[in-house]
Amino acid sequence: MKDVVAIDLGGTNIRAARVGQDGKIQARDKIETRAAEGFEKVVARMAELVGKVRGPETCGIGLGTPGTPDPVSGVMHSAAVNIPDSAGFPLCPRLTERTGLPAAADNDANLHALGESWQGAGRGEAVVLMLTLGTGIGGGLVIGGQVYHGVSNSTEIGHTCVDVNGRLCACGCIGCFEAHASANAAARDAREAVLAAGKKGKESLLYKKCGGDLEKLDAQVLCDAARDGDTLANLCLDRTCDYLAAGTGSLVNALNPSCVIYGGGLALAGAILFDRVRARLGKNRAYQPIWKVSKLVEAKLGDDAGLIGAARLAFEKAGIKV
Amino acid sequence: MKDVVAIDLGGTNIRAARVGQDGKIQARDKIETRAAEGFEKVVARMAELVGKVRGPETCGIGLGTPGTPDPVSGVMHSAAVNIPDSAGFPLCPRLTERTGLPAAADNDANLHALGESWQGAGRGEAVVLMLTLGTGIGGGLVIGGQVYHGVSNSTEIGHTCVDVNGRLCACGCIGCFEAHASANAAARDAREAVLAAGKKGKESLLYKKCGGDLEKLDAQVLCDAARDGDTLANLCLDRTCDYLAAGTGSLVNALNPSCVIYGGGLALAGAILFDRVRARLGKNRAYQPIWKVSKLVEAKLGDDAGLIGAARLAFEKAGIKV
Repeated sequence: MKDVVAIDLGGTNIRAARVGQDGKIQARDKIETRAAEGFEKVVARMAELVGKVRGPETCGIGLGTPGTPDPVSGVMHSAAVNIPDSAGFPLCPRLTERTGLPAAADNDANLHALGESWQGAGRGEAVVLMLTLGTGIGGGLVIGGQVYHGVSNSTEIGHTCVDVNGRLCACGCIGCFEAHASANAAARDAREAVLAAGKKGKESLLYKKCGGDLEKLDAQVLCDAARDGDTLANLCLDRTCDYLAAGTGSLVNALNPSCVIYGGGLALAGAILFDRVRARLGKNRAYQPIWKVSKLVEAKLGDDAGLIGAARLAFEKAGIKV
Repeated sequence: MKDVVAIDLGGTNIRAARVGQDGKIQARDKIETRAAEGFEKVVARMAELVGKVRGPETCGIGLGTPGTPDPVSGVMHSAAVNIPDSAGFPLCPRLTERTGLPAAADNDANLHALGESWQGAGRGEAVVLMLTLGTGIGGGLVIGGQVYHGVSNSTEIGHTCVDVNGRLCACGCIGCFEAHASANAAARDAREAVLAAGKKGKESLLYKKCGGDLEKLDAQVLCDAARDGDTLANLCLDRTCDYLAAGTGSLVNALNPSCVIYGGGLALAGAILFDRVRARLGKNRAYQPIWKVSKLVEAKLGDDAGLIGAARLAFEKAGIKV
C-alpha cells in the first residue's frame, strides 16, 4: 500500500500525518509554525516534519493552508494569515525541492470538505456540501470527489446573504450567513438577549452558567443552557437555528447536494441543534423536492478532516487511485 | 460543417432550429405543442418538425424542456408543466426512435445558461452564472462549458434565501430571491407602494402610466417611470435592486463565477437596473476580492438562448467538437 504525507499549516503548529491509500493515519507529528520568521523558514520546518513522518512507500505531499494556493501550481494567490511573505510564495514547488516529493495544496476549508467526503460523514455521496460552524462559517463543495474551486479559488460559502437588512459582516457584506449563524454570532446574539431581557436575563441559565461574566457566554454555554431547559436559551437557539436553516436551505436549493455536513464548534451541540435545523429544512427553509434527496449530518473526522483531505489531494496529484 | 436540430418545448409552441458548429442558426420552424394530447403525440409532432428543419449534415437533436429530464438517459424525472403523462416518459429514446438521430435533453433554464455561455454574453468565460429574471427567477451554472446539475438535476438558483423574515415564496420557502427580485415581485412591490402612498401614489407616474389600473403596473412600467424621474418609482426600483444585488452577491460569493448574466424581462430595463445592481455589488452586496474577478452583463441571445444551448448539448451528445 502506498502512502502520502498530509500537512495542516496552522497559525501555531504545523501538523503532519502519514496516510495510507485506505485513508487511515499511520503516523503523526507536529512542529511549531513560527510564522513570523517568514515562509521560507516555515517550509524548511515543514520539510523537516515530512522527513520524520514519511516512510518507504511515501509518494507525495498534500497540504492544507489558510489563504488560497493555486490548485495547479501550488503558488499562494492570497496571503496565509500571519505569514508575512506568503502572497505569491511558490509553496508547493519549494516543498518539492526540499523533499523530492510531488506536492499539492488547497485551502484548509476545502480540504476539510474533501476529507469528510472521502472518509467521513460524506463517504459515498455524489455532491457534498460541508459547512464548518466556528468563529466564522467556512465550507466547501465536493462534486464527484473533486473540490469545486470557482474561477479564482475563492468560494465563500459562509457569505451568502440570509438577511437583506441584516448585520454587517466582517467581509463587508450585509446579512451574511456567517454574521448570523456562526458559533460567534450565536454567542453574540445570546449575550444581547440576556442584556435586553433585564431581570429575566439575570435569572436565565445563560447568565448563571457563565457566573455573570457575559464574555464567557459562548455557543457551548448557549447549547448547555438550552439543553437544561432554559427558556431564554431556547429562544436564542431557535433564532440561531432559523438563520442556520435559512442559509443551509439556500445552498441546498441552489446546489442540490446529496449531503450537507456540519462541522466546527457549533456542530458539537448535537441533537439539540441538528433536530431544530432539520425540522426547519423539512418545512419552509428548503424546497422539499430538493431537500428530499439530501440530508444533514454531523462531521465525523474532527480535527483530522483537513489532514485526510490533504492526503486525498496528494494521492490525486501523485496519480494513485484510492 | 456539421449541424444539429435544437428544440425548445414550450407550453404553446414547439420551436426548432438547425444550428451549425459555429453556433449560427441556419433554419427555423415551429409547430403547436397541444400538450393536452399527451407526450406521445407531442413527440410525434417534434419528429415532424425535426424532419422539416434537418439537413444532410444533421447529426443530432438537443432539446430544452420545462421539467427535469435525466441528462444521461433523457427520461423525464419530473413533469413538464401542462403535459399530462410527462413524468417518467422516455423523451429522448422515443425521439431517437422516430428520427434516427441521437438526442439529449435538459431543463430549459440550464440550456439558456449554456447557450449564453457558448455563443452569448458568457462566451469565453470559465464559470458562468445565468439568472433569468421573469415571472420567477430561473438560472443555471455553467462550469467549463458543462452545466452543473447537482445530485438530482434540480438546482434552483432563484430559491436562495435573501430575507430570513421575508415573503413566503411559491416554492414553500421563506424569503426566496425569486419572491423578492423577479419581475413579478418588483411589480407587486411597486403596486403595494402606490397603494401605501395614498395621494402621492396617485400622483406618481407608476399610477398614471397604467391609467390608474394597477393590474397593468408591471416591471416595464416600473422601469419606465423610474427612467422618467418619478420619485416613488425610483424608491421602488432601488428596493428591487437591493434584493437583486443581495441574491446575486450571495451566489457570487458562494460560487466565484467569472461572469453573471441577467436575462428575462427585468433585464430589458438596461442601465437603470444594471447600474444600480453593479453599484451595490461593488459596495456591500458581494465580497470584493471575489466580485473583482467577476462582472455583471446583459444576456445577448434573447429567446434563442435556449435553442443555442440545446444545440451545444446535441453536439456534445454526438461527440462533435464545437
